[in-house]
Amino acid sequence: MDTREILEQLQKEQITLDQADHLLRRQPYEELGYAKLDMHRKVRSGCAEVIFCQGKADDHLLSIFSHLYEADGEVFGTRANEHQYALIREKFPQVSYDDKSHIIKIEKEDKTHIGSIAVCTAGTADIPVAEEAAQTAEYFGSHVERIYDVGVSGIHRLFSQLDLIQSANCVIAVAGMEGALASVLGGLVDKPVIAVPTSVGYGACMEGLSALLTMMTSCANGIAVVNIDNGYGAGYIANQINHLAK
Amino acid sequence: MDTREILEQLQKEQITLDQADHLLRRQPYEELGYAKLDMHRKVRSGCAEVIFCQGKADDHLLSIFSHLYEADGEVFGTRANEHQYALIREKFPQVSYDDKSHIIKIEKEDKTHIGSIAVCTAGTADIPVAEEAAQTAEYFGSHVERIYDVGVSGIHRLFSQLDLIQSANCVIAVAGMEGALASVLGGLVDKPVIAVPTSVGYGACMEGLSALLTMMTSCANGIAVVNIDNGYGAGYIANQINHLAK
Amino acid sequence: MDTREILEQLQKEQITLDQADHLLRRQPYEELGYAKLDMHRKVRSGCAEVIFCQGKADDHLLSIFSHLYEADGEVFGTRANEHQYALIREKFPQVSYDDKSHIIKIEKEDKTHIGSIAVCTAGTADIPVAEEAAQTAEYFGSHVERIYDVGVSGIHRLFSQLDLIQSANCVIAVAGMEGALASVLGGLVDKPVIAVPTSVGYGACMEGLSALLTMMTSCANGIAVVNIDNGYGAGYIANQINHLAK
Amino acid sequence: MDTREILEQLQKEQITLDQADHLLRRQPYEELGYAKLDMHRKVRSGCAEVIFCQGKADDHLLSIFSHLYEADGEVFGTRANEHQYALIREKFPQVSYDDKSHIIKIEKEDKTHIGSIAVCTAGTADIPVAEEAAQTAEYFGSHVERIYDVGVSGIHRLFSQLDLIQSANCVIAVAGMEGALASVLGGLVDKPVIAVPTSVGYGACMEGLSALLTMMTSCANGIAVVNIDNGYGAGYIANQINHLAK
Amino acid sequence: MDTREILEQLQKEQITLDQADHLLRRQPYEELGYAKLDMHRKVRSGCAEVIFCQGKADDHLLSIFSHLYEADGEVFGTRANEHQYALIREKFPQVSYDDKSHIIKIEKEDKTHIGSIAVCTAGTADIPVAEEAAQTAEYFGSHVERIYDVGVSGIHRLFSQLDLIQSANCVIAVAGMEGALASVLGGLVDKPVIAVPTSVGYGACMEGLSALLTMMTSCANGIAVVNIDNGYGAGYIANQINHLAK
Amino acid sequence: MDTREILEQLQKEQITLDQADHLLRRQPYEELGYAKLDMHRKVRSGCAEVIFCQGKADDHLLSIFSHLYEADGEVFGTRANEHQYALIREKFPQVSYDDKSHIIKIEKEDKTHIGSIAVCTAGTADIPVAEEAAQTAEYFGSHVERIYDVGVSGIHRLFSQLDLIQSANCVIAVAGMEGALASVLGGLVDKPVIAVPTSVGYGACMEGLSALLTMMTSCANGIAVVNIDNGYGAGYIANQINHLAK
Amino acid sequence: MDTREILEQLQKEQITLDQADHLLRRQPYEELGYAKLDMHRKVRSGCAEVIFCQGKADDHLLSIFSHLYEADGEVFGTRANEHQYALIREKFPQVSYDDKSHIIKIEKEDKTHIGSIAVCTAGTADIPVAEEAAQTAEYFGSHVERIYDVGVSGIHRLFSQLDLIQSANCVIAVAGMEGALASVLGGLVDKPVIAVPTSVGYGACMEGLSALLTMMTSCANGIAVVNIDNGYGAGYIANQINHLAK
Amino acid sequence: MDTREILEQLQKEQITLDQADHLLRRQPYEELGYAKLDMHRKVRSGCAEVIFCQGKADDHLLSIFSHLYEADGEVFGTRANEHQYALIREKFPQVSYDDKSHIIKIEKEDKTHIGSIAVCTAGTADIPVAEEAAQTAEYFGSHVERIYDVGVSGIHRLFSQLDLIQSANCVIAVAGMEGALASVLGGLVDKPVIAVPTSVGYGACMEGLSALLTMMTSCANGIAVVNIDNGYGAGYIANQINHLAK
Repeated sequence: MDTREILEQLQKEQITLDQADHLLRRQPYEELGYAKLDMHRKVRSGCAEVIFCQGKADDHLLSIFSHLYEADGEVFGTRANEHQYALIREKFPQVSYDDKSHIIKIEKEDKTHIGSIAVCTAGTADIPVAEEAAQTAEYFGSHVERIYDVGVSGIHRLFSQLDLIQSANCVIAVAGMEGALASVLGGLVDKPVIAVPTSVGYGACMEGLSALLTMMTSCANGIAVVNIDNGYGAGYIANQINHLAK
Repeated sequence: MDTREILEQLQKEQITLDQADHLLRRQPYEELGYAKLDMHRKVRSGCAEVIFCQGKADDHLLSIFSHLYEADGEVFGTRANEHQYALIREKFPQVSYDDKSHIIKIEKEDKTHIGSIAVCTAGTADIPVAEEAAQTAEYFGSHVERIYDVGVSGIHRLFSQLDLIQSANCVIAVAGMEGALASVLGGLVDKPVIAVPTSVGYGACMEGLSALLTMMTSCANGIAVVNIDNGYGAGYIANQINHLAK
Repeated sequence: MDTREILEQLQKEQITLDQADHLLRRQPYEELGYAKLDMHRKVRSGCAEVIFCQGKADDHLLSIFSHLYEADGEVFGTRANEHQYALIREKFPQVSYDDKSHIIKIEKEDKTHIGSIAVCTAGTADIPVAEEAAQTAEYFGSHVERIYDVGVSGIHRLFSQLDLIQSANCVIAVAGMEGALASVLGGLVDKPVIAVPTSVGYGACMEGLSALLTMMTSCANGIAVVNIDNGYGAGYIANQINHLAK
Repeated sequence: MDTREILEQLQKEQITLDQADHLLRRQPYEELGYAKLDMHRKVRSGCAEVIFCQGKADDHLLSIFSHLYEADGEVFGTRANEHQYALIREKFPQVSYDDKSHIIKIEKEDKTHIGSIAVCTAGTADIPVAEEAAQTAEYFGSHVERIYDVGVSGIHRLFSQLDLIQSANCVIAVAGMEGALASVLGGLVDKPVIAVPTSVGYGACMEGLSALLTMMTSCANGIAVVNIDNGYGAGYIANQINHLAK
Repeated sequence: MDTREILEQLQKEQITLDQADHLLRRQPYEELGYAKLDMHRKVRSGCAEVIFCQGKADDHLLSIFSHLYEADGEVFGTRANEHQYALIREKFPQVSYDDKSHIIKIEKEDKTHIGSIAVCTAGTADIPVAEEAAQTAEYFGSHVERIYDVGVSGIHRLFSQLDLIQSANCVIAVAGMEGALASVLGGLVDKPVIAVPTSVGYGACMEGLSALLTMMTSCANGIAVVNIDNGYGAGYIANQINHLAK
Repeated sequence: MDTREILEQLQKEQITLDQADHLLRRQPYEELGYAKLDMHRKVRSGCAEVIFCQGKADDHLLSIFSHLYEADGEVFGTRANEHQYALIREKFPQVSYDDKSHIIKIEKEDKTHIGSIAVCTAGTADIPVAEEAAQTAEYFGSHVERIYDVGVSGIHRLFSQLDLIQSANCVIAVAGMEGALASVLGGLVDKPVIAVPTSVGYGACMEGLSALLTMMTSCANGIAVVNIDNGYGAGYIANQINHLAK
Repeated sequence: MDTREILEQLQKEQITLDQADHLLRRQPYEELGYAKLDMHRKVRSGCAEVIFCQGKADDHLLSIFSHLYEADGEVFGTRANEHQYALIREKFPQVSYDDKSHIIKIEKEDKTHIGSIAVCTAGTADIPVAEEAAQTAEYFGSHVERIYDVGVSGIHRLFSQLDLIQSANCVIAVAGMEGALASVLGGLVDKPVIAVPTSVGYGACMEGLSALLTMMTSCANGIAVVNIDNGYGAGYIANQINHLAK
Repeated sequence: MDTREILEQLQKEQITLDQADHLLRRQPYEELGYAKLDMHRKVRSGCAEVIFCQGKADDHLLSIFSHLYEADGEVFGTRANEHQYALIREKFPQVSYDDKSHIIKIEKEDKTHIGSIAVCTAGTADIPVAEEAAQTAEYFGSHVERIYDVGVSGIHRLFSQLDLIQSANCVIAVAGMEGALASVLGGLVDKPVIAVPTSVGYGACMEGLSALLTMMTSCANGIAVVNIDNGYGAGYIANQINHLAK
């Protein structure tokens, strides 16, 4: 119901003044005191609210998890640790946890996964971030192809997978160190490349900042960048793009 | 013709050994000595090569412009100045130049512009970058809505345009200073947001670096970032996304 | 007594030369060898000296705590840990400790809390810093409203609290990640906004530096910034402002 | 008129449905195409919109100036240059320009200036920024005391002015180089100190970044910081604080 | 003559005490007051002293040029401008100047150029730096192959030149923007790659710093990096490597 | 067999169409799912693939180690820890581990070590990085001279070893803190100097970044730089250079 | 007269109450409105106030110059330009200007220059900064030895001057680029070394920041650092040290 | 014996050729393999070599300690920990350890301490660094005055100690956070101020970098800076200055 409809109903006395007031003012979130759960994010953005578990207090995490589960029948949490998994499993034995991506979730069965997103990594150390991206996109309904360890130090490995990559609607390039993978992919595909710098490396890698700058300044076209190690963010926007393609 | 087809034709003696060798090795670019024009980029990436005019020597620019015009019948150049415009106009009187976006181009008539991209700016000083983005997307065939001067210091201006923004397939958020516009948009739309930090501002803005960091670390979902002032890059990837949506 | 009064009393022989000399030279601090307690800060700045507990040696902390308690009958310490709480509780059983804000204190009863300060956070992870700010302002006599988890990724949560925020004399905006909350608040209220960047986030957040830069370069008016995670500093200056309003 | 009042009037048929709809949706800004002038900022924040002249195109500047003048009968612009002054003077001969602060304005006569703000500078090179702060605060109705060239290399100059400084409701500390003035002032007054780092200095001053960091990390209480060279921002928030004091 | 030989000659009275003292102490440089020309650098390092022209005063430059010409019969200067060329040409009409690399020189005829160094650039804007590298290596006696405009946005251009690159003793990779060319080359050749970041690009390129970091953190082996835009330094060390190969 | 040879053999029917297709397409790496081992790197670059052990999962490390051992009969791993050593020793009792350089390896006997590389350190704390460099070069067949603790604070120690250093084909300069050793060496030898900044030092050393910048901006010629603490990278390229010298 | 003396004289009625009040309060500076000249800096610090000319308005500069000349009979200004020289020469024809160091001064004749300060530079481009240091120290009464162009790329030039350097009471090391000269000097002399980084260099020199970090993190003892290009600061403190030596 | 004396003795046959050769070449350090102890640093620089204990292996530390003890009868080590103290105490029961400054030493008795150095700190958290400075200067023979906790947030504490500070030959200013103490001291004394930034603070303090920049850019004269937390370096150069004063 939009603003004009509410006004019309009020005029026609189909709703009371209090009801109209309430409808125009209602807070589409659940107030927990320490948090305001965004219960109609799904309506607004197409994807339900996700829990960033890292640093959450035990009682807060459990309470938020429960509220979201009640609302949607499924929950998705990122950056969870073993302790948090144990905590939630006590109340929700059906929860699953992946110690590579650190994703904890209860997921509805028989989801359809449409289209295709290619998730590529430069090395094996980038896989945890890549898995966060891949599993996020899968949770929101995308089909994902994983193409790992195709960094530019042995570029023939990348070329052997090019058909698979080029057939995707969106490519996610996950790379640490110098992050050159994003540029090379940008020059080879005609779909958007979402680049994820990782904190893999040492010294002048500066915890992923060098890879971020590399990806940001790429000479290739069709590349946009998310935060260091932000697999979730890449999976989220790639899923949006993939769903546009239908 | 792909590798296997070439091999089959050779086996069937439809082509000679030299022809097969040539086809497998041919350089899909035009060698100018000082440059190697990427003539089949359109095949590979869907968009023809574009000229980054800034810093190009006069003879180089004119020569590259001519080669690309011959190949495609249209040319698109970014970051051109008045002098370069005069130079090219002498030989190509039909060329047009926009002194806001610094785009120089010869464009085919009667192009179709499909879908919708919303290009938003925080302030009026961000418009040159926004225009580079908008005109790039238009050149490659996208329809663009311009929503300028809707920064967060007067957020009601943004809300009044929300319907227009939410109906686009992709949103470009152009902002300098603290760059908060991208985060606010990310929280309000369900489509990908491509954020472009600009060098607008002074002091701690650090030539756009602060806006870049803001956009990169947004708490909202569905945001990816391109280089500071890189309107062209944003327009390019937004066009890719918009064309996926069809 | 100011300089001229001392001189007049000396001239009138109401005080001796030694007394006058002493009054002009007296050191308004308590010398502990390793520290010089600023005993008349309350006179000079309106607020008694506060203990920054972090990193203080046990004997130093206990000694300073005792001296300040003797002088004022109440003590306020920030960034205390559990160990320091146990240490002080042995000697001062009446001490209280809040493990969220890490504030340790003995506070006089029946304090009046005047005016109003609105303490807002972008997320739940910012609450420890927000509580340090809120409790500091309360200790020095301000009334505080807490409005937590109203970040820009779900901006409707903020708008639902706007009346409460706009009625305060001063607003404290506590936010990590991209820190856009400060800008949005700055555009919506007509009172000073004290922005506190927090170290919440990862990667390009750079331990809070990105939020600091965002807040510093805001396009909105009426914003000033304190150090990363410096809840105490924000609470202190907000209390000064709130007391000016009477 | 707030939401409930509009609804009540609609129910009582004092206004029509269209009027109610309009009132709830109306855009409180003037659309210029390239800009959206925030015409009810004064209502929302207590201060009318100000023009940041730097980088504005001639026709845009003149048009914005005119619109604001028509609305309020006075206009205030910062960072204007001689050329812009000449441009505006042609149409508005009554405009005044100060080549130190680079402020251009038409101001109503007989304004009252209440309270007191002390604007202090470390050196003479900081005066342009200090004047931007002082004149901003005066424009919005504050009384200002200027105390210039009282940096810590000759700290007796500062102490001789201490009475004047301590009697203000708010202190603005303007300093480049190492920016220590803010810390010293913070330790000497019991009112809020708004610190403005300036780009004065060379080498490790890094265009004002060093002063910004100094002010941000001050060991003194009651200090908050605005952007480098942002005299306007300091004057604005100091004026807010001063007006709270009544 | 080394230390022991001098001592033996002294003992055998073939030289006097003064002569021995002189030989052990002699200053192998020419004292000009404002400069100390390193006249036996050729003996020590295999290459004569080179003039860094940028910023040198006219009289100093001319005087240094003359001294070096007298000593060696040839002179090599980098980062010279048109004015300096005119200045030197007046006295040395045989001097030549290349306005691309900004190298000024008088060079002996009939030099032999041995081995092979491949100088590659990512784009055309990197050519001035590449030419400084190439001409430096040629001056010191290396054969150079130029392979320009083979950046990763169109990687097929690079592959078509791979034989030429792989046959060199040393590869110089000159690239601005994200600098990925060095990594790609490092993965494709079995000879040392000397990477030269250039200041080509804008925004997050940060005047070449991003390219420097990329090259420094490459995942490929066999890469070492010189300063931003330091074509001379790359040409110098590549020439050393090429001469080792003989 | 290169492309033309394959085509000729196909034409002469010495190979089948499938074989030709396979030969042109074959993937010269071993697919492990989580990794793609580059099995013909030795062919391409002259050195077999090396394992970067740090951060590898136990099962991944063991599996990669086994595959490489099977292929080459020897394996070289860097940045291994005690736990990884124990893990591998269980299956490969002949493995050796050096707790200074953190290198783990199985090496063929009776290797020849040719030429000479001088590995110099500024202090004793730089030795772990220097050993990584030295042992890498030795593994690939170079003779190495170790000259440790010859930093510029006691420069006579360096001069006493100058003959040894000057007789090498390549010099590796390993230094933390201010990293001046590289510049001094660059001025004293006529062979390439590969500089390795180390993270030794505190405060303004910024984890090795200061040493990196020092080495990058050296006033001496013939210096190129690798990443902070990257002994492996320095040893690798020095070995390439040393083998060129033969 | 110190505080007690003033009090005693008041008690003994040798001075009046007003006089005592005045003496205790008097402002030892000259108020110019825009500046507060520190007229008793010579008493407090041993050196008269010096004018930092850069950026001073013409009338301010002339007025300050005149006031200081009247007070002391000599004036010393740094960072002056030709225009400022012409301006001052009109009123003070006896003024002298050095276009290398950009120092402008009127100096008393027959000054004694005691002790010895060695001012060393790495290259010829560092001389302007070195001259500012040398002439500052001379103005305040020190004897100075200039040893220029002794950087580490040809370290024998430095060793030939070692006796002269070692005989000074204090050494000033002026160097840009990598700034290694300070470390080398610190290891060779037993007197304090004041290091001055200069902005000489390009790229990773980052306007002198790299040299600053090098000098700050030196492995040698007895080094302290002043700001980039701050020859005046180095000359000032070296003069203090030299005068301590008597 | 200098070069000429050696030559004269050889000529007069007072020494043999081998002896002369040896004398001219002898290595004034003790070779330990992993280290080269600088045994005649005392001759060269006036102070014996000191051990930087942090990070040294147990056997290396003990061996170096023993060698230095044998040579000089006393040893001074900085940045030692409890474990290293226990290790050395086993062999040298007379060793003493200060857990505040982390200095370990065996010191000769009845040393004379001449002159005066004032060591000032801004807060109590700066004391460990200050003690390292103070005890270093005392070890090398200087008298030290400790003036702790006199930071600018309560500047009256500093003024009460001014006589003591002004009577020293050299002042050491130790401060973290914003580091303003150095500037204030520089304006109040006429002797050299050696500033030591400390890593005390959080957030924008950036591990001491902000204090370093503050001190480096001070508007006061007579200040030079050493590395963050480098108490040893400050004590060393202050001792050199104090000994010059005699």
